[in-house]
Amino acid sequence: MIHPSETGEFYELTSPTALPKASGFLWNDTMMIHMNCRGYAVAQFMQPEPAKYSHAPNLEMKTFMQPEQPYYAHHPGRFLYVKDEETGEIISAPYEPVRREPDRYLFRAGKASIEWKIESLGLHIELSLRLPRAEPLELWRMSVRTLSGTKRKLSLYPYFTVGYMSWMNQSGEYREDLQAMVATSVTPYQKVQDYPKINGLKDKTFLLAETKPDAWEASQDRFEGEGGLWSPSSLKEDQLAGGDARYETPVCALQYRVELNPGEEKEFRFLFGPARTEEQIRAMREAYFGARSADGRTGFERAEEEYAAYIAEGIGCLDIQTPDPGLDNFVNHWLPRQMDYHGKTNRLTTDPQTRNYLQDNMGMSYIEPSIARAAFRTALRQQKASGEMPDGIILHPDAELKYINQVPHSDHCVWVPICLSTYLDETGDTSILMDEIPFADSAESVTVLEHINRAMQWLMRTRDERGLNYIDQGDWCDPMNMVGYKGIGVSGWLTMASAYAFRVWADICEEAGHAVVAAEFRQQADETNETVNRYLWDGDWYARGITDDQVVFGVKEDKEGRIFINPQSWALLCGAADEEKQQRLIRSVEEQLETPYGVEKLAPSYTAMREDVGRVTQKHPGTAENGAVYNHAAAFYIYALYQVGEKESAYRLLRKMIPGPNEEDILRRGQLPIFIPNYYRGAYRQFPHTAGRSSHLFNTGTVPWVYRCLIDGLFGVQGTPQGLAIRPQLPAEWNEASLTRRFRSAELRIAIKRQPGVSTAEVYVDGVLVEDGLLTDLKEGHTYEVLVKLPLK
Amino acid sequence: MIHPSETGEFYELTSPTALPKASGFLWNDTMMIHMNCRGYAVAQFMQPEPAKYSHAPNLEMKTFMQPEQPYYAHHPGRFLYVKDEETGEIISAPYEPVRREPDRYLFRAGKASIEWKIESLGLHIELSLRLPRAEPLELWRMSVRTLSGTKRKLSLYPYFTVGYMSWMNQSGEYREDLQAMVATSVTPYQKVQDYPKINGLKDKTFLLAETKPDAWEASQDRFEGEGGLWSPSSLKEDQLAGGDARYETPVCALQYRVELNPGEEKEFRFLFGPARTEEQIRAMREAYFGARSADGRTGFERAEEEYAAYIAEGIGCLDIQTPDPGLDNFVNHWLPRQMDYHGKTNRLTTDPQTRNYLQDNMGMSYIEPSIARAAFRTALRQQKASGEMPDGIILHPDAELKYINQVPHSDHCVWVPICLSTYLDETGDTSILMDEIPFADSAESVTVLEHINRAMQWLMRTRDERGLNYIDQGDWCDPMNMVGYKGIGVSGWLTMASAYAFRVWADICEEAGHAVVAAEFRQQADETNETVNRYLWDGDWYARGITDDQVVFGVKEDKEGRIFINPQSWALLCGAADEEKQQRLIRSVEEQLETPYGVEKLAPSYTAMREDVGRVTQKHPGTAENGAVYNHAAAFYIYALYQVGEKESAYRLLRKMIPGPNEEDILRRGQLPIFIPNYYRGAYRQFPHTAGRSSHLFNTGTVPWVYRCLIDGLFGVQGTPQGLAIRPQLPAEWNEASLTRRFRSAELRIAIKRQPGVSTAEVYVDGVLVEDGLLTDLKEGHTYEVLVKLPLK
Repeated sequence: MIHPSETGEFYELTSPTALPKASGFLWNDTMMIHMNCRGYAVAQFMQPEPAKYSHAPNLEMKTFMQPEQPYYAHHPGRFLYVKDEETGEIISAPYEPVRREPDRYLFRAGKASIEWKIESLGLHIELSLRLPRAEPLELWRMSVRTLSGTKRKLSLYPYFTVGYMSWMNQSGEYREDLQAMVATSVTPYQKVQDYPKINGLKDKTFLLAETKPDAWEASQDRFEGEGGLWSPSSLKEDQLAGGDARYETPVCALQYRVELNPGEEKEFRFLFGPARTEEQIRAMREAYFGARSADGRTGFERAEEEYAAYIAEGIGCLDIQTPDPGLDNFVNHWLPRQMDYHGKTNRLTTDPQTRNYLQDNMGMSYIEPSIARAAFRTALRQQKASGEMPDGIILHPDAELKYINQVPHSDHCVWVPICLSTYLDETGDTSILMDEIPFADSAESVTVLEHINRAMQWLMRTRDERGLNYIDQGDWCDPMNMVGYKGIGVSGWLTMASAYAFRVWADICEEAGHAVVAAEFRQQADETNETVNRYLWDGDWYARGITDDQVVFGVKEDKEGRIFINPQSWALLCGAADEEKQQRLIRSVEEQLETPYGVEKLAPSYTAMREDVGRVTQKHPGTAENGAVYNHAAAFYIYALYQVGEKESAYRLLRKMIPGPNEEDILRRGQLPIFIPNYYRGAYRQFPHTAGRSSHLFNTGTVPWVYRCLIDGLFGVQGTPQGLAIRPQLPAEWNEASLTRRFRSAELRIAIKRQPGVSTAEVYVDGVLVEDGLLTDLKEGHTYEVLVKLPLK
Repeated sequence: MIHPSETGEFYELTSPTALPKASGFLWNDTMMIHMNCRGYAVAQFMQPEPAKYSHAPNLEMKTFMQPEQPYYAHHPGRFLYVKDEETGEIISAPYEPVRREPDRYLFRAGKASIEWKIESLGLHIELSLRLPRAEPLELWRMSVRTLSGTKRKLSLYPYFTVGYMSWMNQSGEYREDLQAMVATSVTPYQKVQDYPKINGLKDKTFLLAETKPDAWEASQDRFEGEGGLWSPSSLKEDQLAGGDARYETPVCALQYRVELNPGEEKEFRFLFGPARTEEQIRAMREAYFGARSADGRTGFERAEEEYAAYIAEGIGCLDIQTPDPGLDNFVNHWLPRQMDYHGKTNRLTTDPQTRNYLQDNMGMSYIEPSIARAAFRTALRQQKASGEMPDGIILHPDAELKYINQVPHSDHCVWVPICLSTYLDETGDTSILMDEIPFADSAESVTVLEHINRAMQWLMRTRDERGLNYIDQGDWCDPMNMVGYKGIGVSGWLTMASAYAFRVWADICEEAGHAVVAAEFRQQADETNETVNRYLWDGDWYARGITDDQVVFGVKEDKEGRIFINPQSWALLCGAADEEKQQRLIRSVEEQLETPYGVEKLAPSYTAMREDVGRVTQKHPGTAENGAVYNHAAAFYIYALYQVGEKESAYRLLRKMIPGPNEEDILRRGQLPIFIPNYYRGAYRQFPHTAGRSSHLFNTGTVPWVYRCLIDGLFGVQGTPQGLAIRPQLPAEWNEASLTRRFRSAELRIAIKRQPGVSTAEVYVDGVLVEDGLLTDLKEGHTYEVLVKLPLK
């Protein structure tokens, strides 16, 4: 029922009801669309703030992307109603709104397209969606072919939701001259100073048809009549009434009368999207359906191909073949794609949170390092001269800090060296350290090196007398807004993260020839680790923090929020935990946080408000930060396990991030294995019934860290200043694996095999043993055959 | 199909589809519910800001009440699904979501209840909704009686929408101990300083059942299954599954298995509403369904009765019997009720616009003058010492100015004397003028008299060198935000309104013994009128204003927005228009603005942005301020017509405000004649197809002015300092009318008759001719018989 296609380019699902929230998503430079297998859609485009052109049936709040998107009858969607003109039967493809189970159903969530193949009423129906590479626009194909041996008379009704556009002004009509349904609105505003902002918006929604329709309807109410969406009254009539919508909810509904001979197929193509003016719509008609090029293709087909090429640019630097086909499929096809999405779109915000922005772009180090490089510069240009990093990075001159970015968080500085280190690993481009960049509040230009020194010094300053870092109104995962809002409470995690940042930065400084500075930061790290152990070790794990009122929390005495994952992961990373503490905390995590779907963020989930901790305790148990399997945090734990050589636990948990390996697990999560969601429901021991459910939200800092787990950990093919270090950490159950690693314009074909007679890993390059496994002097454009011999388990 | 009930206390409708937006509304001290005839509901309660407990299926924007409320499948509603256990047939009362046409249908929009009587499946089904007088709570009765002669086995499923409560935390479950479905949520917030606000909110929604249900379901998705709302899968099962909702959309759905003998009836009663704690829900169970009082009644029944008494308090001071039964029904039952709603609830905002607040409370002069008196004091306490009135009046210490109140408007001062004059007319209570009240920005207490002097002086100061009043970013009806935002443009209407305010205030001052001040203001009014005529008379009507760039608009040369109603009405009121100008402008209004549904606000409606006028031109043509029949503005025109003795036109237009007199007109407007909406669609000459449609928004300053049209105009029973002036202006088509007028604790039974031999109106009190028609020395508690003889037409 659920499986990858043969090439791996699609994930396929053969039931519209088994996995009702199954979805695919596409994006380009200006938009994103999340398409549900049943025909519902969430699409956003940037102008510059995210906006919609297919709306809810009411005035919806503008907010950040929400997890566990609820669907409902009038949720925006893209459908094709089909009426058999002889029997009067009506179905809709792909499934909503009529919900008649088709004879056959195939949903294909693809890398560069989303497709359906459906058989119903003796017809083969295909739908496909692609995007162009730059414009906010949906390219739809809808085709129908007869399966029966008789001639068929049909009406086809493409139906695209417009929804409630605006209380100020909204209408819809068919424009003969554009061969398009055009819905027009004015974005509501009240203050005169907001007028220039709304004046430039793409406030029109259009459905442009390549083939002239026989009839149309622009009024949602008239389209439905008393029959409702699931059985529209207007479809029982011979012909759609052709009514305008005048300050009514508009819809884009067309009718094509079609006669098909046995086996005959007809295809229709459409453009659906936003526009500011009719001229823009006219120009799109010309660009996509106008004159054909010499090879007979229209702009529509060219755009489809360009889009496939655009998506293909987003390959990573790793192709793997392992004993785990689910992992292979995900890593080879979907993981780099999800990283690429983050790096190219910045999650469709104009003010990404600083930590997200840095990590999302860290991922681009593996795909297109120049994007990562530019992003680090952009971020540092918004640093204050004091060293403090802002809560969000402004990406557009009109943007401002919104939502959570208006709440002061204290962790942004730590991410700078941590994320930069990956860029340096991957590229060896230490020149960035000498780039001179100004500050947000000072024209003084200093080197990136100095910028990061100041970020580290800021972390050293914003501590209490014990040397623990203040948490302010939150740190990473922003849940604990009341621990330290009075300016006293501290974060255990942030203190460890600072120590880790100091270590990472010390290594970079040392490599860059700044031994004295490096030693200073290394000493800072050591001192910080001592502080951590003095105040935060709870006997079997590390506490999460200490409140304004000096209550230590995330400890044995707590009934809820007893153990948090982040302090454990980062104690491994920063070196605070000695061998004994490592083993104790790993056992505690296994016992209290590990579930069949991964490790939880904290446990037990809070079920009631705890006022000295704050907002996290008000989130639903098992969701978001409150005890979910928060994959971003889980990825750090896995990364840390690899860092301390705990490769078996690491692989086991890594595998739990991807839905599968079996269908039962995928059904449980409710999501196809084409992306890692920001969380799976946790609170496994409290609410087992809901545990494992996917948030269906694919915006998450998880993915570059999973990639780092693969590169730095599992396959051990991490870059170093000198070259490529080969140190695989295969799980015991694997006897072999092979991979292609693209690295600094060289290609390495690596075979890893367990062999008898091998006591420690042996690395051969083109047949020659490399003593320390460090491959240096790799030449651009060369391909190397690498054999790694591992001992038997 | 549409008619008042015999007592007039209800308006009845016998089809669920003829008038799909037909509705009733109820309110009490803390909430309002607008109930659609098909079962959809919009309910709000104050805590202190308006909030919902029955939500949309998505995260809805918080905004002011919108016109032309769109309904859609998952719109919040209250329904009773009924399943015949023998046939499996399922219907829903009152009509949604199953939409099966019942055999008989009766919707009764009442003054103190909303009721349905439905026959379907051989069953008689009754639903009724009432409120208590103070709590935010819905009191529901749902009963079923067999009509067939056989025993029936049924399942009844009360279904109350909870909807998408919060992305932070939401759940639903059945609480055995409370015998209630309880849905719990946490209102989302991000900033720590917002926590105290959300912490006190009533974030739970509950459905409390008097009778223990046999089964229940708390998950919206599980309730619907693949069948959807119109044919829920769970209803095909023997029993609802009893599932919780855990971070899913909750629903309150119950199941009662019922066996009914022929003719037997069963009734179920429910409480539905918001709560903060379970203890509150428990307390409500006790209060409404706990121990019975000596007379055998529960708190539920007592609350129903108290509510009827509460609504009955809102009677006006006028009962009429005229040749126009539609007018009688509306004036005797619904008009004072709509005024009372405004005065008691302040439109469910904590920061009503100053002009709305003053006018809404002006209406209370006719119902409960002490409320009006207190409101004038509240408003003046927020005046600045400069005389300037604020844009909104803050009614709660936590409230702040929101939405349109953040946009500076320049007209608020004019409303103070205009509204106060009605209070004085009605009560003769000149003591209010000597009340000492401080300012918002100064502790100095001065008399109301001085407050209003300063308001008038502020209007005299905020003028250009010609003596025309600056419009700033808007004046009344807030549409024209770009006429004068540079500080230069002026408002024709506001200049006239100032002149009118000066005249009204001069009269009050003179009566209060301040002849010198009175003379000054009267001179100001005269000078202002001269200015108006010099700069704004366009030959056949008055212009609306002059822009920052000195473009006069609302004039013959304009293709759109050629004529506005407000300058014409107020030119009649302020005395700017001499006899000739009066006749010219009245003819212009008739020709260009009058439609079958009333006079339009402006014509032709703007169909494109005009940047020197602004926002009004971006509103949908024929809606809100852009060419709608904006009843508030229309009421002023009618009032002005009565002031200049144009009683025929006045009555004709007055009658157009109320849907009817015939069914065709009611169907056209789409609204029962139980309230005057803020607008009917205009743009009659441009978009005749949609003209006449009701906005269905009953928040409007129209109603006290309609009452003033009746009191001061049509029936001519206006209070004066000396007593009651009897000067009826009956339309020629009426030969007689009678009314009861309650005035300063006296009651006058007035018969008005046209008689031969009468040349001018003659007024007899208890048989004695009163020379000037001015009734003085009326005694409290006395009833007077008044006969008014009018000449034949």
